[in-house]
Amino acid sequence: MGRTSDAREKILTAAQSLIELRGYSALGTAEICKVAGVPKGSFYYFFESKEALALAVLDEHWATQRREWTRILSGEAEPLQRLRQLFEETEAGQRAGQQSCGTVSGCMFGNLTLEMSNQTEAIRERLQQIFDAQVDMVEEVIIGARERGEVAVSDTREGARSVVAQLEGQVLFAKLYNDTGRLKPLWTNCLAILGARMPEEVSAAN
Amino acid sequence: MGRTSDAREKILTAAQSLIELRGYSALGTAEICKVAGVPKGSFYYFFESKEALALAVLDEHWATQRREWTRILSGEAEPLQRLRQLFEETEAGQRAGQQSCGTVSGCMFGNLTLEMSNQTEAIRERLQQIFDAQVDMVEEVIIGARERGEVAVSDTREGARSVVAQLEGQVLFAKLYNDTGRLKPLWTNCLAILGARMPEEVSAAN
Repeated sequence: MGRTSDAREKILTAAQSLIELRGYSALGTAEICKVAGVPKGSFYYFFESKEALALAVLDEHWATQRREWTRILSGEAEPLQRLRQLFEETEAGQRAGQQSCGTVSGCMFGNLTLEMSNQTEAIRERLQQIFDAQVDMVEEVIIGARERGEVAVSDTREGARSVVAQLEGQVLFAKLYNDTGRLKPLWTNCLAILGARMPEEVSAAN
Repeated sequence: MGRTSDAREKILTAAQSLIELRGYSALGTAEICKVAGVPKGSFYYFFESKEALALAVLDEHWATQRREWTRILSGEAEPLQRLRQLFEETEAGQRAGQQSCGTVSGCMFGNLTLEMSNQTEAIRERLQQIFDAQVDMVEEVIIGARERGEVAVSDTREGARSVVAQLEGQVLFAKLYNDTGRLKPLWTNCLAILGARMPEEVSAAN
């Protein structure tokens, strides 16, 4: 039983790095098993299909990221500072990835959205759930900031969606230009999008 | 000669729609030729490689989009209204695509950035050039708006990058949720990011 779950874990880990490097479509199950160091025949023992594997990779990646987002966004800091910390840790994470593999790999959820969402409805649905959950978490912080009179945004849902959209857009450019510096404007833009009323702190942050 | 360039054009057109539907990695040259209705052997007469075809598709798609962006962004309207028109026409274009093929296909440049930019340097470089040109065009409009005292942004380059990043981010979500309504906040967010000083007009626009 120990060895069995090892093999599943190895396939998942190999698939996650291969998807980060090359996307989903370009991969075959034989290659994944080879990189995982498990017999080719064992793939379908653990996963019904390549799509089932992709869903498992998404779930595992989101479980990890959700823990980080929860730690940051449900933390003790003032609401807007939590958003700032989210952007700073995102930048640090992308920088660490760049140092270990030479290029900024971006956001796996954004990558698979643009590669896959129009091809399999199961993956589209899972990615929608993940981004909905991200927007929920950001919206809760925005509501907290609004209760303190720190932001002027009227539609907190749309505000949260726009903050996440700006994050995905800048991460896309960080990947394209292999430059994590592209993530620097996130905090200032977030304050602008939310109509935050702290011009002194904004200028101090730059 | 007429038939020769016809075949090249047919391959390009088939490749463009197949890439919009399924991305780049999943395609083979045989399938592209089949959809184009040209003999399989003719592919390498026109294109050195599948990568060369992808570059030609990007060039052709950008030539078309650049004409549209130039018409809008170098038009007669006041600077900020030109940006507004860009967002409205982007939304209308995505809606038309959705009506004709059932799903929002998003931005080909963004799609290929997230699918391909870490895999081939030639494609990365071409996509960088295209997005640099988009940012140039948007920045020129922002400079025009700043000269009229309509925006407060200090770094016009970074402002233009953030406007294009917000566009890519919201287009990503329009694709994921198959909902062009996701593009609605672009104008308001653009004004916020640029520190535009026209609250009455903003509320009139909503």
